[in-house]
Amino acid sequence: MNYPNGKKQANSQTNAWSNTGKAYGNRGMTLEEDINATNSFYLDSEIAVIHKKPTPVQIVKVNYPKRSAAVITEGYFKQASTTDYNGIYRGKHIDFEAKETKNKTRFPLANIHEHQLNHMRAVQKHGGISFLLIRFAQLDETYFFPAENLFQYWDDKLKGERKSLPYQVIKNSGYLIPFQFQKRIDYLAVIDKLYF
Amino acid sequence: MNYPNGKKQANSQTNAWSNTGKAYGNRGMTLEEDINATNSFYLDSEIAVIHKKPTPVQIVKVNYPKRSAAVITEGYFKQASTTDYNGIYRGKHIDFEAKETKNKTRFPLANIHEHQLNHMRAVQKHGGISFLLIRFAQLDETYFFPAENLFQYWDDKLKGERKSLPYQVIKNSGYLIPFQFQKRIDYLAVIDKLYF
Repeated sequence: MNYPNGKKQANSQTNAWSNTGKAYGNRGMTLEEDINATNSFYLDSEIAVIHKKPTPVQIVKVNYPKRSAAVITEGYFKQASTTDYNGIYRGKHIDFEAKETKNKTRFPLANIHEHQLNHMRAVQKHGGISFLLIRFAQLDETYFFPAENLFQYWDDKLKGERKSLPYQVIKNSGYLIPFQFQKRIDYLAVIDKLYF
Repeated sequence: MNYPNGKKQANSQTNAWSNTGKAYGNRGMTLEEDINATNSFYLDSEIAVIHKKPTPVQIVKVNYPKRSAAVITEGYFKQASTTDYNGIYRGKHIDFEAKETKNKTRFPLANIHEHQLNHMRAVQKHGGISFLLIRFAQLDETYFFPAENLFQYWDDKLKGERKSLPYQVIKNSGYLIPFQFQKRIDYLAVIDKLYF
């Protein structure tokens, strides 16, 4: 844990410090925006190549107007069969899902689909690194939660034991990622610590 | 080369043999369909986890009808910033683009976008395996063409030297992938030979 035990912070300006000692809060960006900015920084700095996958769309009708771009006029959102983000870092395959919750005390497992969990298991089995990034929006805290820890709680859920990850579990077996200026959500720093 | 030198075949039934000695031709499936079937086989057999990324769509308007699914009523195709396929195999990050051409004598480099090539360079730099799968539809031949070989021809193109990969170059510095029944385009067999 990067963060003093159990102490809750009142606002975003005080819960994370960059390397330079200056405070950076979330400033109203979504988790997705923060991750995209972080991935752009990783890419531009030649640290890693990690991208968000496009939203899967079932395209039903397309119009081809003369002298202009094709227009999709009927399409539907499809359920993703994998996680949203993947790529490569230090030779390792990286694969993760990012979820934001307004809940302050737990992360409901209904946020993750079973085929996404199976995908994460398969990735780990083949030697990749899989994890969740979980943001508690109200607390302005973002955690790295390793897939192995998730699997255990998931299997308990299937046995009817739990339907969510308690905040304290995420705090204790996850890793708080402090906000920074450029690498807003520097999840690779956690990977450096855990896997290299 | 898996295939006798320079000999051209008249039809799809005779240009590839499976491990059991029985011939399998392309049978009118597109390269994308063949790759998707192959990736499904890899996934189901727990050989590898490799998926096609969804087509990137810029979603402009969405209707939310009562009691039914959201409908995208205005959307546009966006240019992909990466390759179409990626995943993990034997601990390695796999990343490739697949292209079909009706041309019999060359593969026009205009089929590949510069940012895709840059993406492939970045993947290789970070320790991944990147390549093209090129199908000559008229010849019913599909080749594995390593990214390193592509980069060289690409740089020549930028110097104004060439605008395509000649068929003979692909034949000589690529690897013919024979059609098979389940692993229709068994490109991982080439990776086994080249990288392990």
